Amino acid sequence: MTGKLTVVGLGPGSPQQVTPEALAAVAEATDFFGYGPYVDRLDLRPDQRRHASDNREEMSRAAAALTLAAAGGSVCVVSGGDPGVFAMAAAVCEAIEQGPDAWRGIEFAVVPGVTAMLAVAAKAGAPLGHDFCAISLSDNLKPWSVIETRLIAAAGAGFVMAFYNPVSKARPHQLPKAFEILRAHLPGTVPVIFGRAAGRPDEAIRVVPLSEARADMADMATCIIVGSAETRLIARDGNRPLVYSPRSWDAASAGKR
Amino acid sequence: MTGKLTVVGLGPGSPQQVTPEALAAVAEATDFFGYGPYVDRLDLRPDQRRHASDNREEMSRAAAALTLAAAGGSVCVVSGGDPGVFAMAAAVCEAIEQGPDAWRGIEFAVVPGVTAMLAVAAKAGAPLGHDFCAISLSDNLKPWSVIETRLIAAAGAGFVMAFYNPVSKARPHQLPKAFEILRAHLPGTVPVIFGRAAGRPDEAIRVVPLSEARADMADMATCIIVGSAETRLIARDGNRPLVYSPRSWDAASAGKR
Repeated sequence: MTGKLTVVGLGPGSPQQVTPEALAAVAEATDFFGYGPYVDRLDLRPDQRRHASDNREEMSRAAAALTLAAAGGSVCVVSGGDPGVFAMAAAVCEAIEQGPDAWRGIEFAVVPGVTAMLAVAAKAGAPLGHDFCAISLSDNLKPWSVIETRLIAAAGAGFVMAFYNPVSKARPHQLPKAFEILRAHLPGTVPVIFGRAAGRPDEAIRVVPLSEARADMADMATCIIVGSAETRLIARDGNRPLVYSPRSWDAASAGKR
Repeated sequence: MTGKLTVVGLGPGSPQQVTPEALAAVAEATDFFGYGPYVDRLDLRPDQRRHASDNREEMSRAAAALTLAAAGGSVCVVSGGDPGVFAMAAAVCEAIEQGPDAWRGIEFAVVPGVTAMLAVAAKAGAPLGHDFCAISLSDNLKPWSVIETRLIAAAGAGFVMAFYNPVSKARPHQLPKAFEILRAHLPGTVPVIFGRAAGRPDEAIRVVPLSEARADMADMATCIIVGSAETRLIARDGNRPLVYSPRSWDAASAGKR
């Protein structure tokens, strides 16, 4: 008997941002795989089993989950945010492609969630209101030269950028380099948003101009949004400024690039 | 007395994909502004008022909502998907910037939601599993030349692309042009996903190679995802193929570009 594997997005962290669809998928399954802190968010019944693992074991986690599902299990793989954005959905697909034929017969589904950049953007205003891109700054799985090419292409074409995996203990130099590259291609006044734990009690949102953005403003749980030359700040008395990217393209503003 | 304005994302369409945070924001407010079909999704109480308007009246809708909030109202502006992605959050920010000073004192919040590209990606597998961008193909608010520049930059740098507002009665020629440009910059085998009403009963998801992608496969409610040269298809007996973009960058595959 072949079982079922669902990859579920738990949103940015607040229970208020988990969809009913995600909760229903969790209620249906019996075995849960994921990075420890994400599995810890689940309120499991005694008959539901935790298989938590470390942050950098995505492929072995995917294989273990698929093995159990192929044997008839009802399995959930959980991710924070949306599982399709730099998270477990792609790792499970990769494992299916490389694994035994039987894994292709498993009933497979992905439940989307609110990804970090949307939660951080919401707290800041509407910085993703115009064309934007999402880039993982981790060079564990791709060469740094590819990341540089993408930063320059995105800045030159006027995309707002969201950075995932901006920094870690093993990768302290990537984010400073990224800011250095962007300062050569964008005005120093472009707003940069550092968003951490959006929607949770320990939420921290900070907005600085690109000229003052520093890598020590981020950790591995931070999502960073870098505006385009068109992104604007609205000052407000006694409140954080609103950051937004206008829906319309202003030739005069873009000319400042 | 100054009131409150919250811009709320209702997700792609299924009630199962609306967050508790969005429902709580709706329960708290008394006046609701938005494009008719989005306001129609709300299950309002008799004391809650609808102010539905047409699709292309974003700025007058934002101004009306802000005027009511400035007079002490408790106001919701609703969007489908996420309100920060090509939707009402940026329009309201724009109106605040251009409007009377009092509008900056309104208590303003944005509630994020599952945006269309995440819902469509989830149905297809994990096409957004690597670096990606989101582009509105509407040239109502930006010149077509800017869109062309972005398509070429994104294809050249290896971004997967999600297209919002791909086509409308007033804009029949933009999507065919976009496919023509992409065919000059990407292999014809790159998977293209046409996703409509993801998660709703009338859901339609279709995957074709770029060489066979046609504009009449989309309407204004379709979200289109175009893979990169690295995006892969996994054939499955009796099931739609899975589409995913590997987390790691493969120099050999990228060389095919």
